[in-house]
Amino acid sequence: MSILPSSLKQIAYFLQRLPGIGEKTANRLAFYMLRLPETDLKEFAQNIKDLKNKTKFCSRCNNLTEETLCNICSNDNRDQNKIMVVEDVLDLISFETGRIYDGLFHLLHGRIDPLNNIGPQDIYLDSLFKRVVEEKIKEVILATNLDTEGEATAMFIKNKLDELKKRRKLKFKITRLAFGLPMGANLEYADYMTLQKSIEGRSNY
Amino acid sequence: MSILPSSLKQIAYFLQRLPGIGEKTANRLAFYMLRLPETDLKEFAQNIKDLKNKTKFCSRCNNLTEETLCNICSNDNRDQNKIMVVEDVLDLISFETGRIYDGLFHLLHGRIDPLNNIGPQDIYLDSLFKRVVEEKIKEVILATNLDTEGEATAMFIKNKLDELKKRRKLKFKITRLAFGLPMGANLEYADYMTLQKSIEGRSNY
Repeated sequence: MSILPSSLKQIAYFLQRLPGIGEKTANRLAFYMLRLPETDLKEFAQNIKDLKNKTKFCSRCNNLTEETLCNICSNDNRDQNKIMVVEDVLDLISFETGRIYDGLFHLLHGRIDPLNNIGPQDIYLDSLFKRVVEEKIKEVILATNLDTEGEATAMFIKNKLDELKKRRKLKFKITRLAFGLPMGANLEYADYMTLQKSIEGRSNY
Repeated sequence: MSILPSSLKQIAYFLQRLPGIGEKTANRLAFYMLRLPETDLKEFAQNIKDLKNKTKFCSRCNNLTEETLCNICSNDNRDQNKIMVVEDVLDLISFETGRIYDGLFHLLHGRIDPLNNIGPQDIYLDSLFKRVVEEKIKEVILATNLDTEGEATAMFIKNKLDELKKRRKLKFKITRLAFGLPMGANLEYADYMTLQKSIEGRSNY
């Protein structure tokens, strides 16, 4: 025998699967939705239904987009010679919301994490190396998180890029975000000032 | 120019309207949904769409249900002589999850709150008084929140019930949750032990 009616319960169950939402919060949110206008709920339902179909990866940087190229890649005003390598979209959003970076991005959609069976082949690395060669990049900024896996990923990319430089006789800088960010920090929750400092103080890697 | 693709952004906007969800959390949740299986998202979308149609108020106690009577009202094992008056469904859930009350409920779906223009006519009070007369109730437990508006609502109901007793020559107890709960507390977040104490120590009002 359940306390909530089943449609409400199903919604609460779904919400509980999202990060940071427990049973009480899920109930509260589901219950709150009941008070919203029918049209808003219908529109939300439609967006959820379309989410996977409409959203795809940018063919260049793997950012999320509904077009072939994302807003950032298709913006000619951005510096086309810099690529910032980030782990996922939320990290990109942190930089974009602060408007503190004018170059391009490359999204790995993950990081090397042997404990969870994620190796270099599981993240978007090949397309990064291809871009570096084809797009005449002058600087690659490694902006993976500053925790163990992020550092290991940065180190791995740095080594691969060094190899590439030698083999192809390329010239570009490889930099890493400054350690203005505390160790173990998550980019997503950093404030813009700290993020800015970390861009300004970036060092050769 | 927006950072997120529009379907994702629309979902994040919607989530931001829910209580306790800010911009970053909304983005994070929307982004996480993108990783869930398509079928789960479709099912969730359908539930959201159906929410308002399927869910209605129990014709007796105003609890949420998909039938005419809610699970609690249609359960003959519950004490039919006690009504606990609560402000909303989340309060009811707190008591039910703790399994510490065996009587019936009455949901006001709000509380008297003059500052927000909510008067006695805006909450489900008439149906409560009707039930007290028709259902031969022996006890009404006032379980509105212990803050100013909740106290005022309890006081208002107590006075109305006293009038009703005199006029109709009825005999029933009116009790209030014990002040084991700290003043200003919100029932929804109380632990079950405190809730239990508040039922046990309920006093004449």
